[in-house]
Amino acid sequence: MKDQTHLTTAPTREDVTAQILAARKAAGMTWEALAEAIGMLPVFTHSAAMGMNAFPPEKAKALAQVLDLGPDAAEILSEPPTKIWSQVVPTDPCICRLYEIVGVYGPTIKALIEEKFGTGIMSAIDFEMHLTREPNPKGDRVRLEMSGKYLGYNAW
Amino acid sequence: MKDQTHLTTAPTREDVTAQILAARKAAGMTWEALAEAIGMLPVFTHSAAMGMNAFPPEKAKALAQVLDLGPDAAEILSEPPTKIWSQVVPTDPCICRLYEIVGVYGPTIKALIEEKFGTGIMSAIDFEMHLTREPNPKGDRVRLEMSGKYLGYNAW
Amino acid sequence: MKDQTHLTTAPTREDVTAQILAARKAAGMTWEALAEAIGMLPVFTHSAAMGMNAFPPEKAKALAQVLDLGPDAAEILSEPPTKIWSQVVPTDPCICRLYEIVGVYGPTIKALIEEKFGTGIMSAIDFEMHLTREPNPKGDRVRLEMSGKYLGYNAW
Amino acid sequence: MKDQTHLTTAPTREDVTAQILAARKAAGMTWEALAEAIGMLPVFTHSAAMGMNAFPPEKAKALAQVLDLGPDAAEILSEPPTKIWSQVVPTDPCICRLYEIVGVYGPTIKALIEEKFGTGIMSAIDFEMHLTREPNPKGDRVRLEMSGKYLGYNAW
Amino acid sequence: MKDQTHLTTAPTREDVTAQILAARKAAGMTWEALAEAIGMLPVFTHSAAMGMNAFPPEKAKALAQVLDLGPDAAEILSEPPTKIWSQVVPTDPCICRLYEIVGVYGPTIKALIEEKFGTGIMSAIDFEMHLTREPNPKGDRVRLEMSGKYLGYNAW
Amino acid sequence: MKDQTHLTTAPTREDVTAQILAARKAAGMTWEALAEAIGMLPVFTHSAAMGMNAFPPEKAKALAQVLDLGPDAAEILSEPPTKIWSQVVPTDPCICRLYEIVGVYGPTIKALIEEKFGTGIMSAIDFEMHLTREPNPKGDRVRLEMSGKYLGYNAW
Amino acid sequence: MKDQTHLTTAPTREDVTAQILAARKAAGMTWEALAEAIGMLPVFTHSAAMGMNAFPPEKAKALAQVLDLGPDAAEILSEPPTKIWSQVVPTDPCICRLYEIVGVYGPTIKALIEEKFGTGIMSAIDFEMHLTREPNPKGDRVRLEMSGKYLGYNAW
Amino acid sequence: MKDQTHLTTAPTREDVTAQILAARKAAGMTWEALAEAIGMLPVFTHSAAMGMNAFPPEKAKALAQVLDLGPDAAEILSEPPTKIWSQVVPTDPCICRLYEIVGVYGPTIKALIEEKFGTGIMSAIDFEMHLTREPNPKGDRVRLEMSGKYLGYNAW
Amino acid sequence: MKDQTHLTTAPTREDVTAQILAARKAAGMTWEALAEAIGMLPVFTHSAAMGMNAFPPEKAKALAQVLDLGPDAAEILSEPPTKIWSQVVPTDPCICRLYEIVGVYGPTIKALIEEKFGTGIMSAIDFEMHLTREPNPKGDRVRLEMSGKYLGYNAW
Amino acid sequence: MKDQTHLTTAPTREDVTAQILAARKAAGMTWEALAEAIGMLPVFTHSAAMGMNAFPPEKAKALAQVLDLGPDAAEILSEPPTKIWSQVVPTDPCICRLYEIVGVYGPTIKALIEEKFGTGIMSAIDFEMHLTREPNPKGDRVRLEMSGKYLGYNAW
Repeated sequence: MKDQTHLTTAPTREDVTAQILAARKAAGMTWEALAEAIGMLPVFTHSAAMGMNAFPPEKAKALAQVLDLGPDAAEILSEPPTKIWSQVVPTDPCICRLYEIVGVYGPTIKALIEEKFGTGIMSAIDFEMHLTREPNPKGDRVRLEMSGKYLGYNAW
Repeated sequence: MKDQTHLTTAPTREDVTAQILAARKAAGMTWEALAEAIGMLPVFTHSAAMGMNAFPPEKAKALAQVLDLGPDAAEILSEPPTKIWSQVVPTDPCICRLYEIVGVYGPTIKALIEEKFGTGIMSAIDFEMHLTREPNPKGDRVRLEMSGKYLGYNAW
Repeated sequence: MKDQTHLTTAPTREDVTAQILAARKAAGMTWEALAEAIGMLPVFTHSAAMGMNAFPPEKAKALAQVLDLGPDAAEILSEPPTKIWSQVVPTDPCICRLYEIVGVYGPTIKALIEEKFGTGIMSAIDFEMHLTREPNPKGDRVRLEMSGKYLGYNAW
Repeated sequence: MKDQTHLTTAPTREDVTAQILAARKAAGMTWEALAEAIGMLPVFTHSAAMGMNAFPPEKAKALAQVLDLGPDAAEILSEPPTKIWSQVVPTDPCICRLYEIVGVYGPTIKALIEEKFGTGIMSAIDFEMHLTREPNPKGDRVRLEMSGKYLGYNAW
Repeated sequence: MKDQTHLTTAPTREDVTAQILAARKAAGMTWEALAEAIGMLPVFTHSAAMGMNAFPPEKAKALAQVLDLGPDAAEILSEPPTKIWSQVVPTDPCICRLYEIVGVYGPTIKALIEEKFGTGIMSAIDFEMHLTREPNPKGDRVRLEMSGKYLGYNAW
Repeated sequence: MKDQTHLTTAPTREDVTAQILAARKAAGMTWEALAEAIGMLPVFTHSAAMGMNAFPPEKAKALAQVLDLGPDAAEILSEPPTKIWSQVVPTDPCICRLYEIVGVYGPTIKALIEEKFGTGIMSAIDFEMHLTREPNPKGDRVRLEMSGKYLGYNAW
Repeated sequence: MKDQTHLTTAPTREDVTAQILAARKAAGMTWEALAEAIGMLPVFTHSAAMGMNAFPPEKAKALAQVLDLGPDAAEILSEPPTKIWSQVVPTDPCICRLYEIVGVYGPTIKALIEEKFGTGIMSAIDFEMHLTREPNPKGDRVRLEMSGKYLGYNAW
Repeated sequence: MKDQTHLTTAPTREDVTAQILAARKAAGMTWEALAEAIGMLPVFTHSAAMGMNAFPPEKAKALAQVLDLGPDAAEILSEPPTKIWSQVVPTDPCICRLYEIVGVYGPTIKALIEEKFGTGIMSAIDFEMHLTREPNPKGDRVRLEMSGKYLGYNAW
Repeated sequence: MKDQTHLTTAPTREDVTAQILAARKAAGMTWEALAEAIGMLPVFTHSAAMGMNAFPPEKAKALAQVLDLGPDAAEILSEPPTKIWSQVVPTDPCICRLYEIVGVYGPTIKALIEEKFGTGIMSAIDFEMHLTREPNPKGDRVRLEMSGKYLGYNAW
Repeated sequence: MKDQTHLTTAPTREDVTAQILAARKAAGMTWEALAEAIGMLPVFTHSAAMGMNAFPPEKAKALAQVLDLGPDAAEILSEPPTKIWSQVVPTDPCICRLYEIVGVYGPTIKALIEEKFGTGIMSAIDFEMHLTREPNPKGDRVRLEMSGKYLGYNAW
């Protein structure tokens, strides 16, 4: 093997995620500010930083510039990641409640999609999500808005 | 055992769900129409009909009247159900996509709640959800809006 | 409950599947012949008969007519089913080999889709599959052809 | 132990996979180009590079030469690997859809194989697969073609 | 639905298995005797009677005749069954020991097949097994002989 | 802690397995040749080298000598190992087929042992196994012969 | 099917277990008394009555006589049962503690068997167990005595 | 952080277990001899050395002295460990047989405890176990004696 | 079988639970009132009615009298039940939160028990629990008080 | 990447937990004393130190000061942790008993909350817990007091 030095210097996706977390903290930027700085929305920005989505190349470069990441970071951030989670049922209470919502309301969402659209599903690929703080006198609320393209089953 | 006849005549929650499904079909009502008829919203109406929520007593009575259900139905529909689902990972594609969204975006939702609110979660109890059809020239979209009260961890 | 007779006479989807299996056997028709008779392809016809897809209404009526099924069958066959399978890892050797192919070649299919299309997936909804017998002097082969729409992740 | 130096210098299969990934990136070659360079097809080339198949010895040597891998690489690439995957249900959406296809269509594929061939299965060993991009005005499609030898159960 | 009487009279595969078990007991025949009576070997005969293999049609008829089974039995016994077992790890000690043998010796069997044949497997489809009693002064032994066709992976 | 140097120099069982694999490869010996060199059979030799059986002390010494292993190896190879496998259902196709054979034929093997011996099992402890290549004009076959002592349940 | 009446009248093993439980209760006999009445020990008697062991034929007859069971019971009680338990980790506290003892002391039992005997195990087939009440001023104790034949691994 | 040197020098419980295993081997002591040297019994001594029980402080010191362990070892050995095992169903045959005994005889042990004591369990906390070699002309036996305090459920 | 009529008339524990649920509803009694009527506390009363505890005989009789249950009910209610739950992780939000508390605070409870008592556990057998409504201006609170005997591990 | 030195010097949450454990031991402080020193209660203090809760910033600083932790510790201790536990069913007896209490009494707690409050749950977020030693002549008891805000389901 004549030249393997490229092997040892290439950071992994996990390395880049760690760099982003550390640099963001050092810079004192919120995810919202970071997202705004690169012209994207916070849910996408955070998920792509975590390795759950791929940044479009120009956004990856913008992020690398804003946080002063190393030269390979932008390329890595725009590669399609393999999305892996290891807990079949999440244990953290904040995520566990979302799992519970799927368990309780999953069949209802399915029934209403079928009533309003026909035989099909909401895409999780052509999909976006926004999270906002909803002021409320009885206690502010988390507002989650999801929008996914309706995909109808084909018949052949 | 002097009198057990009350045992055999009492319908179970599953029986009432089956009655609702059959009566709604016979009446040709959509879930949206049924929800409107009792003055509730469709997501809640369907989920409570499926045994995943309890109807407020007056709404239970209204539903029983609209669908001409038997005399015990209203009482049963207003009792707190035990929420059970048997598939840890749902297999139906429409529900499976929701599970996937939790896997992919769960840590992101957690991070943004913490950024916008502090250490806490979105309640799945003081919670509501709306599903609408969002017209779009590239293909209509499913719009899911969730709103849950922010609950901050206490420290003691 | 004034009138519940509609409850007891309505066949379930499982009943209709059983009717189809029995009637097809009695009629001595292959799945291929049955599919041709209703103008669909065999993979779709069998999967919809098993409750894994919904027939378009006119195809459901055609099937009910060809097999002389009862009056409710066509309606039931065109309703969106809930797709459930109970074995996380299938035990039957014929199905198990397909699971194995996903385990062995899944990451490869992902890599090649990304190489040829970009960051996205093959749809399992806008999807079709054909199975044919491929003559071969060393022993005939099963040919499985799948075609699914490429769905690119959106970024927002 | 007189001489253990051979132990520490031998790369593992995982090392060779990492070398291939890095060298291919450095060389800017697609999997398709790499496959063509060694006279094999892309699905096999990628899967064998990932440790899910063994290269025929001459192909292993060709690959090592094209990518300028170290001297042990060719030998390692032609050894039978142990095929391991750790997620019983894959979480990545692209692979998960394939799992879903097996769940939905597995019994159908089994039924049609039996109809066209008899009591048996499609081999996952004497098997090959091709992935192509299928142009389509409504959006290009992923085309997956699999061909596996029919294996009939013997009776004795 | 004009005529559904064929539905209720058709026995299932489980019914036929139960008939065989009862009839064999009533006839006082061993599995070995039963197998000999139809000209097959005991392992295959028992497994096919249990719904884990399909009898060749003429053997199914012979079995139905020997045990005086009903008219549908032969047809059902020659249909390809879906092979299902519900315990991922078997609990019965006799079967559990076989599972243990796979766990302990599986990698060894794989290594020796590769040494003697190349990159491939022992078929579980073109396969047969014999069980005999091996006299031994220290205690008789169970002798299990399996023979499966070697299937070499193809490369493409 | 006065003297801990013995801790760091002691190889683990995994180390010894790695030494054997490397030394055997360097020596160009098949498992069959290695087994013959120490006067044992290949299945046992391989399984004990992998840490799934303990070598008798003199055989451990013979192996260490043939492969020129370090001084501690023989002692380690004759200690009872803890037999661990981490995949409840094996994924490698070669081993998976054996698991499948247990699933399909397990109840049959149990029934035939009971018919030929009485209430009991085949021992997996007083057990041996041989693997041979069986020439066959239609394609050579893998022949697996297992022999385990019959153990009858006692009643008390 | 000429004569299937034997099918419907044959009780299953579960039926016989239910008969024993009811008859023992009606007779007011303890398991200890029942065991003594048939000349066996209580652990074996109870486990065989539950379908976890086979009674020797003469003991089965004795039990059927003592409890006045039906004519088929003795035969069924002497057939080898398939030992099945459905909870991988038992939930009942009394049984769960036994599972815990295996988890905590399993490696210790293994180590001490190897120290006192060599490479082998305690048989669970040639095995017996006694449970007695051990008087103790600080609170009586449950005494469980198990005795299983040592089985040494063979090497070949 | 002014002084963290205490962090790096503190051995973990796993380190101490490794020290004991190595020192015992170097000293050529059996577990029985080691137990006798510190005035405890072998089952407890081994289990506490493995991190499954806490040694009383004076016994921990004695063990550290006998085996010449480092200064922190005694303290660590007398701390309550967290008892963890990772295999829900143990794979090693020697431990697996114990799991099997719980599966087969668990309900029997429960029934006999209830018959002899009342509604309660055998404690796994106020518990002890002895393992001895029982000479037997047909082959020596492993004798396991367990004694656990009976704990009756309270009612309130 | 001379007399099996006792078999069919004996209600099971599940039957008795169903009787209690129906009779309590018909009587319009709360669990608190029911518990008071028999001189026990509500947590125990409900759990024993559900088959998760055994009533002391006189309490079982009292309950049967209050609710006018059949003659066998009292006997059945005082027999030790087998405590079974089928969901390893409970799905109902109310019970799921308790599971979460164990996950989050389990190691803390363990550490504090060890700090305050020594090496041991809180008994779940000699145990009681009270649930009360705690008025609070910010919203009433559920107060759960558990008390279990400390059980110290013995050393031997 | 111009400056990554902040990456390597930042301790993780696990590092801080390890620092606390070591420093507390070195200081000879109980958890109770440590909690008192920072003006919190022991259950919260321990759980937050373990990474299962976030300290309020001023408490994090107080803890860092008391134990002389490094400069980053306080910041890390006040960040919201991701609560993860890896054992679905805990194996340590002390924690396992808590899991058992949830299994046995979960449905009872649910029923009594519903009786006393309505349709809702006990919050695990607005929640606190105290553990005390309860003197008792028959043996001291562990007293666990939990208090969680009642959260009523909303209907919409």
